[in-house]
Formats: sequence, structure tokens, C-alpha cells
Amino acid sequence: MTTTNTTGRVLLVGAGPGDPRLLTLAARDALAAADVVVTDRLVPLTAIDEHAPRAEVVHVGKIPRGTFTPQERIHELLLEHARAGRTVVRLKGGDGYLFGRGGEEWQACTAAGIPVEVVPGVSSALSVPALAGIPTTHRGLSQGVAIVSGHVTPDDPRSEVDWAGLATSGLTIVVLMGVATLGAIAEALLAAGLPADTPAASIADGATPQQRVVRAPLTGIASAADEGGIAPPAITVIGPVVAALEETPA
Amino acid sequence: MTTTNTTGRVLLVGAGPGDPRLLTLAARDALAAADVVVTDRLVPLTAIDEHAPRAEVVHVGKIPRGTFTPQERIHELLLEHARAGRTVVRLKGGDGYLFGRGGEEWQACTAAGIPVEVVPGVSSALSVPALAGIPTTHRGLSQGVAIVSGHVTPDDPRSEVDWAGLATSGLTIVVLMGVATLGAIAEALLAAGLPADTPAASIADGATPQQRVVRAPLTGIASAADEGGIAPPAITVIGPVVAALEETPA
Repeated sequence: MTTTNTTGRVLLVGAGPGDPRLLTLAARDALAAADVVVTDRLVPLTAIDEHAPRAEVVHVGKIPRGTFTPQERIHELLLEHARAGRTVVRLKGGDGYLFGRGGEEWQACTAAGIPVEVVPGVSSALSVPALAGIPTTHRGLSQGVAIVSGHVTPDDPRSEVDWAGLATSGLTIVVLMGVATLGAIAEALLAAGLPADTPAASIADGATPQQRVVRAPLTGIASAADEGGIAPPAITVIGPVVAALEETPA
Repeated sequence: MTTTNTTGRVLLVGAGPGDPRLLTLAARDALAAADVVVTDRLVPLTAIDEHAPRAEVVHVGKIPRGTFTPQERIHELLLEHARAGRTVVRLKGGDGYLFGRGGEEWQACTAAGIPVEVVPGVSSALSVPALAGIPTTHRGLSQGVAIVSGHVTPDDPRSEVDWAGLATSGLTIVVLMGVATLGAIAEALLAAGLPADTPAASIADGATPQQRVVRAPLTGIASAADEGGIAPPAITVIGPVVAALEETPA
């Protein structure tokens, strides 16, 4: 354990899904107190300009199949700045504790004796569907929600998601990081018994002015998403809730 | 369809998990614009006092096994006030679209020709665990998260949750509205093969100064929660992630 005489600290802050108005008051206050902001590419950067105009901004974006900053280097950055006595805001798109590796960053800080605080954000997994008109639960249509990562295909040895189990779970399925793998994921769900006409929707750049929503039955969602230009960052929702609000009498 | 000549509208706003600092900037602005706030008991009421000091406040709280306002009456209230030309904020604890019946309220407004807008909030299901030191996903420990309601026991004819499927899913299990049913839920998960020593935690009054956290292996979580005074509103998390940050070297 490394001890320190400075007042440096780390705040692990969720920035919400992309609309800077979906920052929390606590996130705004954290940014206002920040000497350094360590941010990824999913954060609304105007929020940093507005709330932390004087802070040093360090970009550690991860781009699918592109350049990225190794997680260990992110830990080093947080510790280096905090040990220099700075207030460091680690700002992440959505919520940093849901597929955000926030727990690992918390561990790195704690192991180094650096004070660390968590500020939860609006999760993209739930809010992006909501803003696209899809409630992730709806009375009579869904028993709950499963949020999973689609970063590898179901037949990949690294896959840890029980897609067959999800197919029969009755849960709304929310897939993050699953654009390139969407066809294989849909096939696995169909093979396990999820009906071909199960409503599905892919949402790219959710909660931003560039938002694009593609809806199709499960059997056609991958090709529809491809034709509709769905690219990361994107979220796919699968289940009857996708059509829940479409059927509203108007 | 009922038409209207007024400028009334409804904003379906998530208030976050209990800490008024976890309101979003958009929620704050919605409150500032509100003529009427229709709120439930899980909302931090100081947020209404602070951001909507002049609004009429209508409480439609639902208390387990106690008084409640029927959902249809809530719809009527929203429509009555909007038809009178008012800006109506329907404020809910957490996020209104996750077990919040926000979709039904959206349908009621749309069917009546009332403009309606959704403002997602910080979901209690993810943020309350995070604030109690539990990341809902953690590298190597969780394949994703399932969020389900525990409002009826697994053997209740009204139960729609596939507890046996969840037991083998590898997902972190987050149970909302499952205090009285926790013993039966734990039994169902154990019977379906979830190991007895699976870490679990129950969190009452999360994200408030009254927060209480009880941790125990799955086999003992119900009695520990009972002895620890866990009462609604509470959230239970089941899975290896519950112990993830406890094992951090300090």
C-alpha cells in the first residue's frame, strides 16, 4: 500500500447516455471540482467544456478494433494525477459500473491508498431504449430485463453469455457492444427457441441528435441494422416490449 | 382520441435512487417548468421543494400492502391537469420505464392526444448496488445483469420470473420489490443449483443517509436481512460481484 500526504482523490463518474442534459447534478459538481478529467469517447464532450472548462482533459477512448488505452494505463493515469494532489474525475459514458470496468478502477485506487468516490450515471442500457420509445419492462409483456455484452459471438470460446438460456427466460434482452456480432446472436436466440417474429430494435448514437433506430423482427434485425447504417455505439433490444408503445391507439 | 386546444403536456421524469444530487439536469429543468408534480413515495421530496417550489404536488404513493393510488387514477390525474393547460411532471423514484409503469402512462397520454416526453433517470437497480460498493458487472465474475421483480414468491401462480433459469444463467441477479419474498426466492435459486455460498447483499433505503447494507451467503441472506432490519424499499443483489470489491487489498 502506498501512502500519500496529498489531498488527491478520484471520482468515478457516469456521464449518462450522450445527451449532456442527462448528467446528474452530482456529475456536474464533480466536473466543476475537477483538476483533471480522464474521459472516454462515449461521453458528451460539451459537458466537459461547460462544467470543467479549466480542467486538463485526458482522452482514453476505446474504439472497437481501433486504438485504445490499456486498462492498466488508465489506472496509472488516475493514480499519477491523484498522487500529485489533484481531483481526478474519471468520466464514462452511461454508468461506469455496468460494463464500465469501474470496479477495477475502484480497486486500483483503493489498493494505492487513494480516496475514491462513485457517482452513478444514467445507464445507456435502460435509457437509450426509453428515449427510442421502448420501455424495458411493460406490464404483461416482460418479466424483467437482462443486460449482456455482445462483444464476441455466441460460438466464440471467450463467450460467457448463456444465449440459449436467455431465449427462454422471458426477460427483455438488451445487448451492448453487439453490432458486428448481431447476426450470430440472433441466430443463437432463434436456434434456442425465441420466435422469429420477436420484435427487435437497434439504436445507434442513442440520446444524441444523431440517433438512428432500426426495428425488425428478430429474424431480420441483423440485416436491417446493417442496411440502416447501425454502427457502434449501438444497443439492441429484443422482446415484446419493443412493440409495446407502437400498438398504442392514436 | 380527445383533442385539446391547450398547451398542456406531461413529462415522465425519473428522479434517481434517492439522493437528490442524482437528479439529472433535465429532471431539474422539468421540475422548474412544472405547474403540477405527480410524485410517488420513492422520490427525494427535497428535490421537489428545491426545484419546483411553486408547483402543486400530488402524492400517489404506493406502499406495499398499504394505501395506493390505482394506476388508472394516476392516468386520469395526468390527463386532467394537462387538459387544463398545465405542464405536468410525473416524477418517479429511479427510472420510470423500469418497473415504473412509465410505458402505460405514455400510452394513456398519447391515446388522449396529450404531448408526452420521457426523461430517463438513474435506475435504482444499478446505482444502489454501485453506491453500496457492488459493481453489477465485473471482469471475470459476471456475464451481465438480470433485473427482476420479487413482488410474488416463485411458487405463486402470478409469478412470471424463471428463477431456475436465472440460477444457471451466470448473470448477476438484481431483485427489486423482494423483501417479504426473499426467503422463497433464495430457496428457489438454491434448489435450481445456485451454490449456497454465492455472495448476496440486501440494501434498504439505498442512496440515502439511512442506507443499510446486509451481506450474507445466499443460503443465509433472508434471515440476515430480516435480522438486519431490511425493509422496503430494498434491493437484493446475488452473485460473485457482491464480494468483488471486498477482496481488494487495502
